Amino acid sequence: MIVQDRAARSSAPAMADENTPLVRDAWYVACFSPDLVAGEPLARKIAGERVMLYRRADGTPVALKDRCAHRSYPLSKGQIDGDDVICGYHGLRYGPDGICTVVPSQETPPRNLGVAAFAVVEEAPLIWVWAGDRERARREPLPSLPWMRATSGWDLVTGYLFLKSSYIHMHENLLDLTHIGFLHGKSFGSAAYASAPFETIVEASAIVVKRTVEPTMLPPLYAEPLGMVDVPASRAVTSTFHSPGLSISGVRLSRLSEPLERRRYHHAETAHLLTPIDANSMHYHFLMGRDFAVGDAATGEFLATSLRNVFLEDQAALEAITDVRSDDPDAAPDRSVASDKAGIAMRRLMLRLAAAEGAPT
Amino acid sequence: MIVQDRAARSSAPAMADENTPLVRDAWYVACFSPDLVAGEPLARKIAGERVMLYRRADGTPVALKDRCAHRSYPLSKGQIDGDDVICGYHGLRYGPDGICTVVPSQETPPRNLGVAAFAVVEEAPLIWVWAGDRERARREPLPSLPWMRATSGWDLVTGYLFLKSSYIHMHENLLDLTHIGFLHGKSFGSAAYASAPFETIVEASAIVVKRTVEPTMLPPLYAEPLGMVDVPASRAVTSTFHSPGLSISGVRLSRLSEPLERRRYHHAETAHLLTPIDANSMHYHFLMGRDFAVGDAATGEFLATSLRNVFLEDQAALEAITDVRSDDPDAAPDRSVASDKAGIAMRRLMLRLAAAEGAPT
Amino acid sequence: MIVQDRAARSSAPAMADENTPLVRDAWYVACFSPDLVAGEPLARKIAGERVMLYRRADGTPVALKDRCAHRSYPLSKGQIDGDDVICGYHGLRYGPDGICTVVPSQETPPRNLGVAAFAVVEEAPLIWVWAGDRERARREPLPSLPWMRATSGWDLVTGYLFLKSSYIHMHENLLDLTHIGFLHGKSFGSAAYASAPFETIVEASAIVVKRTVEPTMLPPLYAEPLGMVDVPASRAVTSTFHSPGLSISGVRLSRLSEPLERRRYHHAETAHLLTPIDANSMHYHFLMGRDFAVGDAATGEFLATSLRNVFLEDQAALEAITDVRSDDPDAAPDRSVASDKAGIAMRRLMLRLAAAEGAPT
Repeated sequence: MIVQDRAARSSAPAMADENTPLVRDAWYVACFSPDLVAGEPLARKIAGERVMLYRRADGTPVALKDRCAHRSYPLSKGQIDGDDVICGYHGLRYGPDGICTVVPSQETPPRNLGVAAFAVVEEAPLIWVWAGDRERARREPLPSLPWMRATSGWDLVTGYLFLKSSYIHMHENLLDLTHIGFLHGKSFGSAAYASAPFETIVEASAIVVKRTVEPTMLPPLYAEPLGMVDVPASRAVTSTFHSPGLSISGVRLSRLSEPLERRRYHHAETAHLLTPIDANSMHYHFLMGRDFAVGDAATGEFLATSLRNVFLEDQAALEAITDVRSDDPDAAPDRSVASDKAGIAMRRLMLRLAAAEGAPT
Repeated sequence: MIVQDRAARSSAPAMADENTPLVRDAWYVACFSPDLVAGEPLARKIAGERVMLYRRADGTPVALKDRCAHRSYPLSKGQIDGDDVICGYHGLRYGPDGICTVVPSQETPPRNLGVAAFAVVEEAPLIWVWAGDRERARREPLPSLPWMRATSGWDLVTGYLFLKSSYIHMHENLLDLTHIGFLHGKSFGSAAYASAPFETIVEASAIVVKRTVEPTMLPPLYAEPLGMVDVPASRAVTSTFHSPGLSISGVRLSRLSEPLERRRYHHAETAHLLTPIDANSMHYHFLMGRDFAVGDAATGEFLATSLRNVFLEDQAALEAITDVRSDDPDAAPDRSVASDKAGIAMRRLMLRLAAAEGAPT
Repeated sequence: MIVQDRAARSSAPAMADENTPLVRDAWYVACFSPDLVAGEPLARKIAGERVMLYRRADGTPVALKDRCAHRSYPLSKGQIDGDDVICGYHGLRYGPDGICTVVPSQETPPRNLGVAAFAVVEEAPLIWVWAGDRERARREPLPSLPWMRATSGWDLVTGYLFLKSSYIHMHENLLDLTHIGFLHGKSFGSAAYASAPFETIVEASAIVVKRTVEPTMLPPLYAEPLGMVDVPASRAVTSTFHSPGLSISGVRLSRLSEPLERRRYHHAETAHLLTPIDANSMHYHFLMGRDFAVGDAATGEFLATSLRNVFLEDQAALEAITDVRSDDPDAAPDRSVASDKAGIAMRRLMLRLAAAEGAPT
């Protein structure tokens, strides 16, 4: 009989889980560009921080702490006026730097009255916020890749899910391809996935898993747009952990019947934009780019729907895990298998990143 | 950039907030007189205490702890019999003093078996309960004012809201007139309100703010019953914190075109009857008296509806603040501005009252 | 005036309540036999443990911890294959002993990878699980009685309720017959119940209360099937606490007009199968056997409905008590009366059983 070892839990955890403090010093996607409409404040909780976003008169985004310094009313319930936001409770006016410039009931506002302003960058179709130390944000480049940009020439589709899951477990899910044959057995994967050979590359900050499944039949999501239904194919997959806010799944698809010297390769890249809300919930923005069927709206719609359906399976699994783990936080720690190498590396890295920040001050 | 100072929070708070123990030694409105029907027990949580109320045979109210001493069943689910209440679980009978007089399964009840009885006074249309030390209640007069009584000759309208808010923040809201031009900008106020001169009077126990807005246009709530739509008017407002359970807003309205020597003044007084339930929720009974349109039922209905609509705006704001504050109890303390003088005085007084009581024993 | 003594609470409790750790070393009913369908895993939380049940190929039940050892996915969301369960996330296969035999992404599973297997026994129509130490289960006989078995020859009706109540308070409710005249005054009891003489027998593990109410009128639940409406009757009741998972109410009914030497006696036994979920919730399976109207389906339906209606009254009372107690866990302890003798004996026994187990390890 297996006797589970609760005592093991009492020692320091070897890798991050939902109990690890959220990494705040990171770029996280707050919303898609069209979500932030001129004149309309938007509230988003990011890594434990209540943030409100709005657009300046020139359209550039602003991100402020969503709590008036005076009596804690959410600024996101206020009004945008030019470059400023006016609190809806007592009319205090804040500029994009978070400094209060007007208190209507007196001639000049008290000194140093203001709210935190967060670093925020728009690179359409994404708006990124740095939830932590603003100085560090200056030194840290955006984790975006060329194809993710609206100007890339690739065709992009997007989607959003609210997940009651730690971003840690979602990151691990994304680096793990062995679940595709089971959790996504009917939608996206095949049993061949679990046993295909794979390579794990752990770099200073990025963690990469590569796997080629060949020969294989492509799932409808790829086979239909490419006209490769029931055709022996090669499916080369690269999963990359880029940063706490970004994981990318890339796939290179080809027809095995085409000779290697003139084989055509089709690419799709999916950015998984993970934004922790708190220990057990997250925003999940996703963005898929492709270099095939570009400009074909029907394919775009089909992919957006298919992708969402696959991710709903991840959501159900991750939320079930949240329930189980929340129910018994003192349970024995996760046991790992060989294919968890990338996930473990990511979870160790996340633990180090969280530890380096220390507790929020 | 503004850096908020979480450390500041670690020192003792200078004024009460939702984390301050509830003041129990105070008169709080439990319900309106018609809410307590003969023969029907009523459950109300007041300042953390589960209370059950009922009427004796002669109609006078009784307030007992709503928890049978035997097996914790709520007495409010029992039956009223004469002056007594009979527990619905095992039939224990309690008198108005809370002493158990009958245990059906034995000849005489155990000694000293009983539940706490609270001081309770009806002064129609209000029933007041003292949630704390019963001895102190004897020395403390009811906070009611002549016009609040059913016998006043004024016309009264009433209403009730359940608010997910600390009573502290509601009290401060009521003493603060600068929010009227913003939160109630479309329903009740004007921007002129925020900048009108005001006077703050801090007495031993009462705290008063006076403000005259003149000239002004009255909001429909007053203008319509008085036939003063679009007429230059004077609006003299007095906000008074009377006690933890009572704040009063009085207004004196007049037509500026009438010469001072024969000017008619119209008065409305609104009693805000705040009864804390727990840290972040409260009963909000309100009662408006007026000396104009007396006996005119249509005006009464119009005022009750209008008033409720204004208070729903307060409710939305205060509940948003509860959410924000609950989410980050270690946030930097509130920053105050000049017009908060009365609110701060009230919050300091509430802190002293709570401290004087000590922890519940 | 009664002043309740909160300080009394600080000393060690003399008897179990909802704060006492759940007794895990006990047989608890997990479900009725028909609830566990071949090929379909069933999730049940028992005494704080997430358990999943399924049937082997030969139909015998298996009970495993409902949490994959790898990444905490509930095994109850997996697939049954022969005698095994396959995790729905990454395809790990577990046998009925909880040992993992297949990890699809590698040739052999890691050593000692597995989940806890619980002792489980089916004695139709009941499936029992031992939530604690499996070794102890071997020495402990099932608490079932002959008439409870599908093979007893008696006619059985069953029912289920989810109760937001501690099983302790439900056990006490079942041993206490004085509440029947009040809580069930209109459905099942009469005031005579509270004052009828009773006998309490406290044995090493069982606790028995006996009471004969005579003469009495039977409630419709008994009177209608027996054709004894408005007929003077004898109702002899025995309530027995058998174990943390089982309490039994037996009744012997007879017509007083029949002379003693040839009086016919009719029996009904009700097994109250209490399965704690956590401190304040429980599964409540019930099973009533009778030796009258055997084979009469209409009587069976009538009894099942009537019984459920009586137990819904217990549910409402117990859930109200849960609310009251949860709201003020530091309140004065329960005060007892003479008729609580059996309940107190049971609560002391439960405290000893919980203490003997110590904290979960």
